[in-house]
Amino acid sequence: MNTLSNMPALFILATGTELSTGRSKDTNSPYIANFLAERGYTIQGFATLPDDPLMLESYIVHAMLSGSDCVIMTGGLGPTEDDYTVDTICKIFNTIPVEDLPSLTKLEERIKVFKGRIELNLARRQIRYPDGAKILRNRIGLAPGHLIKGLIQNKECMLAAMPGVPQEMKAMLEEELYPLLLKEQKPLEKTRKQFYVYGVGESNFQVEVFGKTQSDPDSLIHKENLSLPEDFVWGITAGNWRVKVFLESMKTDFIDILYHKIQTLYKEKMLPDHAAMLLHQHLSNVNKTLSFAESCTGGLLGKQITDMAGSSKYFHGSIVSYANSVKMNLLCVSKEILENHGAVSSECAEAMALGAKRITGSDYALAITGIAGPDGGSDEKPVGTVWLGLADNHRTKTVKLFIPLDRDRIREYSASAALYVLYNFIMNHDYH
Amino acid sequence: MNTLSNMPALFILATGTELSTGRSKDTNSPYIANFLAERGYTIQGFATLPDDPLMLESYIVHAMLSGSDCVIMTGGLGPTEDDYTVDTICKIFNTIPVEDLPSLTKLEERIKVFKGRIELNLARRQIRYPDGAKILRNRIGLAPGHLIKGLIQNKECMLAAMPGVPQEMKAMLEEELYPLLLKEQKPLEKTRKQFYVYGVGESNFQVEVFGKTQSDPDSLIHKENLSLPEDFVWGITAGNWRVKVFLESMKTDFIDILYHKIQTLYKEKMLPDHAAMLLHQHLSNVNKTLSFAESCTGGLLGKQITDMAGSSKYFHGSIVSYANSVKMNLLCVSKEILENHGAVSSECAEAMALGAKRITGSDYALAITGIAGPDGGSDEKPVGTVWLGLADNHRTKTVKLFIPLDRDRIREYSASAALYVLYNFIMNHDYH
Repeated sequence: MNTLSNMPALFILATGTELSTGRSKDTNSPYIANFLAERGYTIQGFATLPDDPLMLESYIVHAMLSGSDCVIMTGGLGPTEDDYTVDTICKIFNTIPVEDLPSLTKLEERIKVFKGRIELNLARRQIRYPDGAKILRNRIGLAPGHLIKGLIQNKECMLAAMPGVPQEMKAMLEEELYPLLLKEQKPLEKTRKQFYVYGVGESNFQVEVFGKTQSDPDSLIHKENLSLPEDFVWGITAGNWRVKVFLESMKTDFIDILYHKIQTLYKEKMLPDHAAMLLHQHLSNVNKTLSFAESCTGGLLGKQITDMAGSSKYFHGSIVSYANSVKMNLLCVSKEILENHGAVSSECAEAMALGAKRITGSDYALAITGIAGPDGGSDEKPVGTVWLGLADNHRTKTVKLFIPLDRDRIREYSASAALYVLYNFIMNHDYH
Repeated sequence: MNTLSNMPALFILATGTELSTGRSKDTNSPYIANFLAERGYTIQGFATLPDDPLMLESYIVHAMLSGSDCVIMTGGLGPTEDDYTVDTICKIFNTIPVEDLPSLTKLEERIKVFKGRIELNLARRQIRYPDGAKILRNRIGLAPGHLIKGLIQNKECMLAAMPGVPQEMKAMLEEELYPLLLKEQKPLEKTRKQFYVYGVGESNFQVEVFGKTQSDPDSLIHKENLSLPEDFVWGITAGNWRVKVFLESMKTDFIDILYHKIQTLYKEKMLPDHAAMLLHQHLSNVNKTLSFAESCTGGLLGKQITDMAGSSKYFHGSIVSYANSVKMNLLCVSKEILENHGAVSSECAEAMALGAKRITGSDYALAITGIAGPDGGSDEKPVGTVWLGLADNHRTKTVKLFIPLDRDRIREYSASAALYVLYNFIMNHDYH
């Protein structure tokens, strides 16, 4: 925890029996945590609880009394009998539920439209809020959110409640809650850097940069004689064949120096964003087009590029050639290559890339062919063997990967690696 | 909460500052919840906390005293100074940490292999456990887990701690913790049904089956005169263009009748598993092959089919024809269709399916073309308009969808809908 910060420490609490029993996934809490952490707030933890007023009460009070200054809740604001949030908050802050009049008007209009399909008395339950709280308007749905401040066992506490529907919550967080939190206390000015390092594992990065122990003489920190500021926070998120690294401190100089030293250490392996996004930004700005030939990834590469709106500007398509017949008939991989070298080979990857480039007429092509398992491996080509093929108008290149993991991760890692290798190929960076 | 159950109520607690700050996602807690809930255990909630011994202690004690009989923890068992789990548990249960000798032997062997790259004294931290606890062996990694029983403020409590590395945790949960929990208390025999309903929203399903209110005369429950058993638990998870429904009770008859009534209501919209899995099972068993032609989904359909190991038996490939030139040159969609009807039309979807079927030589082909936005919509064809095309050796069929949502959901929903429509097409069920 960042003890230097004077920002309120936040605790995030999702309510809903479907969440607490694991039947549905709570996506709200991580979203709120990321949104507010990126803006300098300290997140102390999460909890997910059933629609049970006593459980809710006990955890809210506990979070407040064990070091959190503000609890942000989602869920339990609906019209049904198992929506307990407003009543629980009223009990804790010793107040009563009142109706929000603008929301009542909205509800009455809605009832007219739905002609009796909504029961007013039942639905009115969702427009209540604790008397004395500030309303957080719900632009997308009906139930208003609210922010209440008060004493809990003589400690000054703050609690915000928002609906559980993700779209309603997101708009309310951004447009209503965040501006109010900012007024309460402005976050400290911190310098943050975030970047990606490809082809490096989480623990490798940790040992190489920060050392096996704090006094490890082989670490970058030790070799470069860097002393860590007291408020320095860093984090690594392991991804697919890459790590996402996050550095933060109020000492701008230190963050800049450390960032530069890490860049010198990892060179072209370090990218300021993930490779798919960098490719997208680059290709959106130059007049060049791209296509894929996929085998083991089965369409995942194409999916990842077309996840980004605007990719139709440069992306021609992908030939998912799962069967060898499709490799031969569509991509014109020769029978000789498939018989002598096999579908997972440098030769086949190169031929697939050239085939995709020719039949789609793109400037760049990337091919990926590998053994994702669980079957199909051999001593010579074990499960996890993957070949990438790249082609532009002047040259081709192939790269071999070995990812000795399970099927899902072989597919995810190799797609991620492929986009990284393609980005370096297009930017003419030396790779390997 | 299921008050009829005499199983211990479980609370799941993940520790790790990278998790509690939202930098990494906790996948362990939902996994444990699902694993144990499917086996009849009651899950009371989750929490995610930073590596802070006082926070850990306060939440463990709080969970125990507010109704949970067993806390299952993950994380904080590693060798570094911020791993506090063992010490915290020792403090709560008033015992001391001791070393697990088999793990020490394992550690010493590992140190020999890594020739000094691991420091024994530092690494020994991770082979400790609270004296008096039962060891949970770690088949995959080093740090052992443990299960401890004891009194907390005169209440009999149980706590299990497992490593945070998902592979280690999963093996330990299945092979070590679950058998021990079973010995402590056998779950009640319950009847469970799980199924999918396509093309129906979460609230539609809820209103149609269970009613707007408990006495809604239009609900299935009311019309069929069904009275819900006291221990009846149900849940809906909204998915992509479908809901997953879960019914549970000790009254087998009731669950069977309700399941049957729901089936009569939804007919072919209700499937016993999700459509991709049913397609996979069917096509793996008959000698028929499949291909796709994708536009707006960009490879997502192919990705979803090839997610399943063994799909190479029937899946030939997918032509991701993002550019119209690829639709024309590879799939032989005529210029006339593109000019007169456009790429998002019944005619184009049919031509794409026929093209994919012909060039890959598959028995079945499915095409998908739509406007995923945010740009490209018109009054006539707004963003969210999607056409599906289907072809086999005898017939073709096209289906129009309208999904007025954001880009991601248009893509996800239309892929899910497409596999559902394809399954019904292949099984010769009447759809629409």
